[in-house]
Amino acid sequence: MVYRVGLLGLGTVGTGVVQILQRPGHPLLQTVDIAAVGVRSLDKPREVHIPPERLTTDLERIVSDPEIDVVIELMGGIEPARSLILKAVDHGKQVITANKAVIARHGAEIFQAAAQAKVSVLLEAAVAGGIPILQPLQHSLRASRIEAVWGIVNGTTNFILSQMTQEGSSFEEALAVAQARGYAEADPGADVEGWDAADKIAILASLAFGLPVARDQIPCEGIRGISATDIRYAREWGFTFKLLAIAQKAGPSRLDIRVHPTLLPSTHALAGVSGVENAVLVQGDPLGQVVLSGPGAGQGPTASAVVGDLLSLIAHLQTGAQVPNPLWGFPPASAFPPADAESAELPALIPLAELEAEFYVRVLAQDRPGVIGAIGTCFGNHQVSLESITQKECHREQAEIVILTHTVREADCQQAIAEIRQLPQVAGIPAVFRVLR
Amino acid sequence: MVYRVGLLGLGTVGTGVVQILQRPGHPLLQTVDIAAVGVRSLDKPREVHIPPERLTTDLERIVSDPEIDVVIELMGGIEPARSLILKAVDHGKQVITANKAVIARHGAEIFQAAAQAKVSVLLEAAVAGGIPILQPLQHSLRASRIEAVWGIVNGTTNFILSQMTQEGSSFEEALAVAQARGYAEADPGADVEGWDAADKIAILASLAFGLPVARDQIPCEGIRGISATDIRYAREWGFTFKLLAIAQKAGPSRLDIRVHPTLLPSTHALAGVSGVENAVLVQGDPLGQVVLSGPGAGQGPTASAVVGDLLSLIAHLQTGAQVPNPLWGFPPASAFPPADAESAELPALIPLAELEAEFYVRVLAQDRPGVIGAIGTCFGNHQVSLESITQKECHREQAEIVILTHTVREADCQQAIAEIRQLPQVAGIPAVFRVLR
Repeated sequence: MVYRVGLLGLGTVGTGVVQILQRPGHPLLQTVDIAAVGVRSLDKPREVHIPPERLTTDLERIVSDPEIDVVIELMGGIEPARSLILKAVDHGKQVITANKAVIARHGAEIFQAAAQAKVSVLLEAAVAGGIPILQPLQHSLRASRIEAVWGIVNGTTNFILSQMTQEGSSFEEALAVAQARGYAEADPGADVEGWDAADKIAILASLAFGLPVARDQIPCEGIRGISATDIRYAREWGFTFKLLAIAQKAGPSRLDIRVHPTLLPSTHALAGVSGVENAVLVQGDPLGQVVLSGPGAGQGPTASAVVGDLLSLIAHLQTGAQVPNPLWGFPPASAFPPADAESAELPALIPLAELEAEFYVRVLAQDRPGVIGAIGTCFGNHQVSLESITQKECHREQAEIVILTHTVREADCQQAIAEIRQLPQVAGIPAVFRVLR
Repeated sequence: MVYRVGLLGLGTVGTGVVQILQRPGHPLLQTVDIAAVGVRSLDKPREVHIPPERLTTDLERIVSDPEIDVVIELMGGIEPARSLILKAVDHGKQVITANKAVIARHGAEIFQAAAQAKVSVLLEAAVAGGIPILQPLQHSLRASRIEAVWGIVNGTTNFILSQMTQEGSSFEEALAVAQARGYAEADPGADVEGWDAADKIAILASLAFGLPVARDQIPCEGIRGISATDIRYAREWGFTFKLLAIAQKAGPSRLDIRVHPTLLPSTHALAGVSGVENAVLVQGDPLGQVVLSGPGAGQGPTASAVVGDLLSLIAHLQTGAQVPNPLWGFPPASAFPPADAESAELPALIPLAELEAEFYVRVLAQDRPGVIGAIGTCFGNHQVSLESITQKECHREQAEIVILTHTVREADCQQAIAEIRQLPQVAGIPAVFRVLR
């Protein structure tokens, strides 16, 4: 049996996929024939050799070609990726994709179509590159009730924060280094605003909890607001800044999903994940905590994950299976646990205001007696109990006051901060960040 | 469709498995009926309720009962586990086991029988408890060429070494703490001598390299010889002691597999894995390095892995598959890559003497001028280049001299050490350990 593969896209990852498939490898991969490769330009010089007659700019033809068994989508972006994937599925093709954006937003539609067509859609490469996380969440780990998934799932922002921490540089300086090294794009928005991480945690949460997730409802804060000063103060207290993507169970049909910069104790399992590395922590009952870490992006790791899916798919097809593996589905088709999936409605996401956390707050104020008392009173007015309030550096009669709260309701803390902002002695509140342990 | 499961053993892990299966969980697990449980004593009080008529001391009957679909073996040890597994396979039953000892020694025989009977044998729980490592090695990671697997796969020894490091205690004191907390058995041999770790690395190496591994040829050194002094000196140089299980490719048909205490730089990805935690590092091309860490033992994590296998198995059976998933096989059935598996012979393991490493050597000698020179000369005689040679503490005219070598051939270093042992000024060489980076 030969499996004819159509590749949509021959960029960095596509080239890596071809390189793996063109060298000796797993016996099952010897059954793969790269039958067609869809590209934007036929004339562009390529690092890999594809016979010219197999290159085409007609991607529609690939996804409807009756000779193609498996479509691997590596174009990225929403359209035309979504339409091409749906068309491939409608034509009975198995699909592998590395496209987190399209799955996070249109996963339900795509997996419903796949279930009807009895084909599989695999996406290990879409989240955390070479780290095996989606398949474990679908298989081994699902015997446990997953309570929480915390991830450092964006290498660009993790590199920037590591750089700021190690070099004491500003966000802009660190971003420039990331861009110079090819870790950040010219327009870094999707990474630094946390949108890429939100795509990934939407997918992780769906698989972990067996519930569909509304990507556009995920609260998302990026890392632009973090200054070298905050990183320095955080370190003094034993904390490390990370852009965390968080998904937690919060009652029978409520989920707590969010992306925001977080101060983690430097001893936390995720605090030591530095540079472009990714890591995902899974907390389950009775599993306990598992941490999977490794290269979250890059040609080799991502291509390895794509071909890993191809290997899993071929193994599945060779067993004579009549239908896709039921664990490969996406919610609601495989909703779990059943008690949590009484309706097909999207579960409600808890608004940030209702959540509880400790907070790190940095206030700029006049260096006058009574300022600390006034700030403390504002917090007290809103039931925000403080762990410490410390006057840090002072220059030009302006003092920097840093507050660490105990665990409090976010809405209470925000109201206290709004009140502090109105104090005549206060010049500004440049930093409010959550502390998690 | 109902899947009737026969459980062999209702100890800690068996009880955990029943607890997961008796609560609401994944819909596919609702198809499971615990039809029979084999125990040693029918009268023992149990934490879980099993109808008395389903308890039996006749384990042979379970594995040959035509009503049973899946046998879960949780007895441990070689016999009768091996015979019962083989009999279950011969009777066409699917098998799930957490038994590393029997798979490490009789995996080839068991998997050959399973291939003939067209049934699956799954064993995620046999290595590193709740950490999903075997299934990723069989699926996602296999697209890459696996070059190395390094593991901290024995929680008992990792706890003892962590305890010695944190408390400055001796091996005996730390072992006593481990025993008091239930982390070490009364007879701790299998753990502290490294045999348990050797079982696990044999399994990991087989799956990673697609080659059968001769368990009894794996060089294995335990942790009894590590003293509080060595741990202290190692820390001064920035190293942490770990019992590493190592498996590396070393040419087309040679493997480097071994278990021994290792000094790791404290910044190494595995150095921070402390207490009873386990971690496995996988290095692949073009994957890069992935580290999977978490609870390596205990009721909840191990039971979670067992039930995860059951879930994977049921999902597989529900697809209408006629044969086991080809990626679930064990070498040589699924030998990979083919170039490495030209013969069905066991690949040769490299003897320790041929390997290269840096060495940490601690020598007790008389505190006389010329001793360091004499020791240095012995190393030089055998082409062992030194990074440092340092006189540490001195009491009762006896000096402690600690040597760190550059990367050298082990045989050369051992010959130098034998020569040093003969020096009249030398009273003993209590410590020789390998340093890896």
